[in-house]
Amino acid sequence: MSTDTSRRTPTTALSHHTTDAIYYREKNLVTDILKPGATPDFVAEAAAHILGRDVSDGERRVLNAIMITMMEHGFTPSAIATRSIYMSAPENMQGAVAAGLLAVGSQFVGTVENNARILNQLVALEEDAQRTLAERVVDDHKARKVHMPGFGHHLHRPEDPRAVRLLEIGAENGLAGRHVAALRLLSEVVDQRAGRHITINATGATAALLGEMGVPVELMRGFSLIGRTAGLVAHIAEEQQRPSGRFIWDLVDKSIPYEA
Amino acid sequence: MSTDTSRRTPTTALSHHTTDAIYYREKNLVTDILKPGATPDFVAEAAAHILGRDVSDGERRVLNAIMITMMEHGFTPSAIATRSIYMSAPENMQGAVAAGLLAVGSQFVGTVENNARILNQLVALEEDAQRTLAERVVDDHKARKVHMPGFGHHLHRPEDPRAVRLLEIGAENGLAGRHVAALRLLSEVVDQRAGRHITINATGATAALLGEMGVPVELMRGFSLIGRTAGLVAHIAEEQQRPSGRFIWDLVDKSIPYEA
Amino acid sequence: MSTDTSRRTPTTALSHHTTDAIYYREKNLVTDILKPGATPDFVAEAAAHILGRDVSDGERRVLNAIMITMMEHGFTPSAIATRSIYMSAPENMQGAVAAGLLAVGSQFVGTVENNARILNQLVALEEDAQRTLAERVVDDHKARKVHMPGFGHHLHRPEDPRAVRLLEIGAENGLAGRHVAALRLLSEVVDQRAGRHITINATGATAALLGEMGVPVELMRGFSLIGRTAGLVAHIAEEQQRPSGRFIWDLVDKSIPYEA
Amino acid sequence: MSTDTSRRTPTTALSHHTTDAIYYREKNLVTDILKPGATPDFVAEAAAHILGRDVSDGERRVLNAIMITMMEHGFTPSAIATRSIYMSAPENMQGAVAAGLLAVGSQFVGTVENNARILNQLVALEEDAQRTLAERVVDDHKARKVHMPGFGHHLHRPEDPRAVRLLEIGAENGLAGRHVAALRLLSEVVDQRAGRHITINATGATAALLGEMGVPVELMRGFSLIGRTAGLVAHIAEEQQRPSGRFIWDLVDKSIPYEA
Repeated sequence: MSTDTSRRTPTTALSHHTTDAIYYREKNLVTDILKPGATPDFVAEAAAHILGRDVSDGERRVLNAIMITMMEHGFTPSAIATRSIYMSAPENMQGAVAAGLLAVGSQFVGTVENNARILNQLVALEEDAQRTLAERVVDDHKARKVHMPGFGHHLHRPEDPRAVRLLEIGAENGLAGRHVAALRLLSEVVDQRAGRHITINATGATAALLGEMGVPVELMRGFSLIGRTAGLVAHIAEEQQRPSGRFIWDLVDKSIPYEA
Repeated sequence: MSTDTSRRTPTTALSHHTTDAIYYREKNLVTDILKPGATPDFVAEAAAHILGRDVSDGERRVLNAIMITMMEHGFTPSAIATRSIYMSAPENMQGAVAAGLLAVGSQFVGTVENNARILNQLVALEEDAQRTLAERVVDDHKARKVHMPGFGHHLHRPEDPRAVRLLEIGAENGLAGRHVAALRLLSEVVDQRAGRHITINATGATAALLGEMGVPVELMRGFSLIGRTAGLVAHIAEEQQRPSGRFIWDLVDKSIPYEA
Repeated sequence: MSTDTSRRTPTTALSHHTTDAIYYREKNLVTDILKPGATPDFVAEAAAHILGRDVSDGERRVLNAIMITMMEHGFTPSAIATRSIYMSAPENMQGAVAAGLLAVGSQFVGTVENNARILNQLVALEEDAQRTLAERVVDDHKARKVHMPGFGHHLHRPEDPRAVRLLEIGAENGLAGRHVAALRLLSEVVDQRAGRHITINATGATAALLGEMGVPVELMRGFSLIGRTAGLVAHIAEEQQRPSGRFIWDLVDKSIPYEA
Repeated sequence: MSTDTSRRTPTTALSHHTTDAIYYREKNLVTDILKPGATPDFVAEAAAHILGRDVSDGERRVLNAIMITMMEHGFTPSAIATRSIYMSAPENMQGAVAAGLLAVGSQFVGTVENNARILNQLVALEEDAQRTLAERVVDDHKARKVHMPGFGHHLHRPEDPRAVRLLEIGAENGLAGRHVAALRLLSEVVDQRAGRHITINATGATAALLGEMGVPVELMRGFSLIGRTAGLVAHIAEEQQRPSGRFIWDLVDKSIPYEA
């Protein structure tokens, strides 16, 4: 039972169809998107479908780079979950992918959103006020001993090469405005407070670039999910050739001892 | 507890990293895939990562068209599940996407695999033997009153415009070989046995085109999952703007009466 | 790649086994839990396994009542998701149950935790200070126009009969201590501020009773999940007999119009 | 878009409500199930809700024993997935449980159904014909080198103590009829063909006992799902106290080497 039965009927702008046509928003799938001579581009169409507007060529290039970067991170908890479930129910690939996607939560990809929220607060201010806020935010994280989202990498030092390149690709494609400037300012303050250089990481670069594109913070995770889905399908493809699920099971089972 | 503790250690070809480089299979993510002057393409990289080989430009174009076609199908059970879960746990977009992906099972996308298995059996034969098998398969489905996978559409008659265009895009890009020929042969037999034209549908076209690319049947669902993920993210984006979850709840609750 | 490779090996107290025995924590499954003359009780064993201590008979009775109450709520978003996924992939019951469980998030069951956190703050105080805090909390929710978790029901007025009975069952079984008293105090303040009686709902009663049992707030959702799983299996059982998935699809699809 | 818009409205027998009462099927939740003097029993109510009939005391005892046995199996792929997802998104316990439940597929719990289907075929025959079919089935599995579902255990030899005890509990509670007899017959044939004793395992015992209760094969997985949910919640409870997710990540990542 719901809490209210009188409410307005919602509508959808995503699609409709007639007997001989399917529409994605206002475009005819066959005679617009897939028409002869066109080069149908999944990333561009996905972004247009999600954002409700066509994306520029530059935005498309940056989105491709971001989604490629999100695709693969090795034997992460996400990939381990996918492989474990695939081994248990290989008749059911979608369950294995769904299990791995459930890892796209607060601890990893969620940090994009945390960084993006800070950037949004910064770009809402005049330039003078930005530094003050940046200092307050960095000091506050330090005081709470909380990791500053978008900065640092346990392995890639002094620079996360992905972050450097993603920001370059942004600049090459017209996405180096106020969000990227805010990230650079934040980076200056982070370095100053740390007394040494801390890399901007791929999370920080992604937050700034999606911010430049006007992607709402609460939608950012969506692009990671598309990228991750491709990566998890690759893990399943490899699992079909080089099964690891039972090895992982044995390994974990014998490595975690019983202790009452 | 597992059933065997002595087995060989599996390996992975998907990725490895050093302190300053990340590799996707044999390619350096930053200096190969994302290098200046390149046009990084998510679909091409995803396909290469999944299939373990680079795809041709033609294959890339066909995959883009297929994944766009998979992306959106309106208020399907998949989209309804995603919207219902998003409404219940909006803090957790990945859960809503995972719920919707769990619909990518036997009843809808699984029919691509059923069609592809038939095509694989056909292309394994000499041409003469193909027609005999095609007739046997169609007659068998008819006798069992089972829907012939890849054929027919409740709405799009006489032709599913997506299937027609997908096969054209295949032909424009060098993917019109033995699998497509087998599909056309099957189509002839279907029409003959039915005494009227039954459309090849998007499922059938997808099975033939992925078959042309050498995608193993048990991997085909993976490309649907990537396409669907994008579509489900779009449903969540719309749900953020035009919430439908509670409306759906009320509607369903009041439309299904109690009967002991 | 992970962020640290030097860390202590974790241990598990949940189970271990020998060639002829399986242990659940310290108990032998066969010769302790299932031994002749015993009445093996799933709820008691589940609670012991989760909480790491045996529960009293009174606690067991209260948990049974709570889990029964959690089991069924009709055609909720959770049940709609389960039925939609089951229709799409009936070969895969676990996917349908998983989809429905993903609804056990912030908007519904999460309110148990929100109420429980308030109760925990209240019971940490001397009695005098409790009323002051209760007033502050209620006024704060009112000022923010946020629903007070654990109170009110759109349908069951003036009392939610489940909440009344659950608290009685608690009292009959020795669970009417400081958490229940804190809930009653909160209820007094809620009524006073509203100028009329607002029912304690099942959420509020559950939070107080699990609080009495010392269940940590971050574990409370677990008991809801067990109860919901049973309810979702019942929805699948009914779906096998009286399919509703396609009806729901048609109904939703035709009820939400296209609007650009 | 769906394939048919003219179909009968489905109904539900699971629940309905009035302003002051909630019904589970025909029972009033508060005044029947939870009424003073009653001992509300979650397992009995769940079974009645799922099966559409009250279960006997004997059936209830057997179900409790089965669900307890299903609850915990150590660091299985299911538990590994749950812990990996919980570590990634601890704000979202339901996602971690859902991930682990997705392992309840063909490779482990699905074997209950495979065994139950054989038992159903046997009990449909006269006694004389049963042995012939049993021999055919066992020989056929042997010829196909497929594991005989319900028999054998890599660790528990010569007997799986759980299976022995579950069948005893069945006998103590009036569940030792034709399905159990068919399992014993199958066991005789298995032993004869193997030339040594192969244990009936917990899977086989469960299939026979649920068969005795008249649970349809396609519903059997549901009781495993309820049991597993409790076990996975226990794994999360332990993960909150003794985190293993990062250890598992490091362990797996460093144990599976790169090989192109």
